[in-house]
Amino acid sequence: MKIDILTLFPEMFTIFDHSIIGRAKENKILDINTLNIRDYTLNKHKKVDDYPYGGGAGMLMAPQPIVSSIQKAREDNKGKVIFLGPRGKTFNQEIANELSKEEELIILCGHYEGIDERVYKYIDLEYSMGDFVLTGGEMAAIPFIDSICRLIPGVLAKDESFQDESFYNGLLEYPQYTRPPVFEGDEVPEVLISGHHEKIRLWRKKQSLLITKAKRPDLFEKYELSKEDKKILYNFKK
Amino acid sequence: MKIDILTLFPEMFTIFDHSIIGRAKENKILDINTLNIRDYTLNKHKKVDDYPYGGGAGMLMAPQPIVSSIQKAREDNKGKVIFLGPRGKTFNQEIANELSKEEELIILCGHYEGIDERVYKYIDLEYSMGDFVLTGGEMAAIPFIDSICRLIPGVLAKDESFQDESFYNGLLEYPQYTRPPVFEGDEVPEVLISGHHEKIRLWRKKQSLLITKAKRPDLFEKYELSKEDKKILYNFKK
Repeated sequence: MKIDILTLFPEMFTIFDHSIIGRAKENKILDINTLNIRDYTLNKHKKVDDYPYGGGAGMLMAPQPIVSSIQKAREDNKGKVIFLGPRGKTFNQEIANELSKEEELIILCGHYEGIDERVYKYIDLEYSMGDFVLTGGEMAAIPFIDSICRLIPGVLAKDESFQDESFYNGLLEYPQYTRPPVFEGDEVPEVLISGHHEKIRLWRKKQSLLITKAKRPDLFEKYELSKEDKKILYNFKK
Repeated sequence: MKIDILTLFPEMFTIFDHSIIGRAKENKILDINTLNIRDYTLNKHKKVDDYPYGGGAGMLMAPQPIVSSIQKAREDNKGKVIFLGPRGKTFNQEIANELSKEEELIILCGHYEGIDERVYKYIDLEYSMGDFVLTGGEMAAIPFIDSICRLIPGVLAKDESFQDESFYNGLLEYPQYTRPPVFEGDEVPEVLISGHHEKIRLWRKKQSLLITKAKRPDLFEKYELSKEDKKILYNFKK
């Protein structure tokens, strides 16, 4: 996937030089570039922001530098232009999955108090990472890009497989344990050391169901219980 | 505020050396440190992960290096230990606001397939940034820390004030415009250039109400309409 990020702070995206995404970049599975919006302003003092019409605190990003940088990115990126902003649909795993199938994306990061409304005409999709305010769109773009990229075939190694993960099947993940068998007096549940695959599977399913019910009743409500799930939940005594 | 971040990828947090958070660090309003969990493993090969009991893909973070690094951070940080994980309450502006009043925080970033369940005993609070999966807790910690820190007095400059921002009063923000008055054929709404403060206030309120209703009906439903709001929504003709 080719991603062009339009930002006033390109240096923030060196985060993608590390760990899993960094490796995928090295392996040419991902091509993540930044364009500095400031490079495209026609203002002779290199200004990219200005006061809002009608008054109010803060500065707005002016339309010209943004639109010019979108046009620059367009020269070799035909992907959708995505803006991370509060009016967008709340981002989730389903959207990540859809977007991971795109070949190219252009991501616009806002800063200051916001962007001039007239820029919206040049934006294809808007997503919100959640109901919280950030200093800039960069802080939202990082988890956004990360969650999409990790779904692209080849980005995660085989042993980083995402089959069992939370939100994949609509339930939270079961508790996991690794060595040592006893840590500070706490033991690993016996069933996990039993070697009995079917018992382990059922124990994990039960834990997943119970944890989701307790911690995320909203997810639990949406989840369709199978016959087995019902049996696990209502017939198991312990 | 003093924040200690426990992570396997301390270099990812150089993002906080830039822009608004970077300036607050320089001004000593924020003291953001990283501890590399790998530095605290007792494993002679510096390993921090291991296979999960009971089988399954991926590696888990072992309990000892995490707990030892929490204890190390504890030496001069009495703040709550926060883990960013899927079982947590979904983070929002209200939580950001509460946490911004803390003097110290310790933030644990998970990686690989997750953390050993026995670590939960050492965690005070868990938050989820949303219903999506990331390559590591670092990608969640970045917007989490950013949204909290920007609320700390002195972090935002006066002209970056956050009075009008989305999610502050439960509504999305009204459209904003800056120069030029005409951009690619699109004009700034006349009322904003009128200089008539009361008309501008009412126009903005109306836009806020309409945009929230259209884009985030869930927020609109929760919002309590004032007498004025009702008048704006139902009596205005244009």
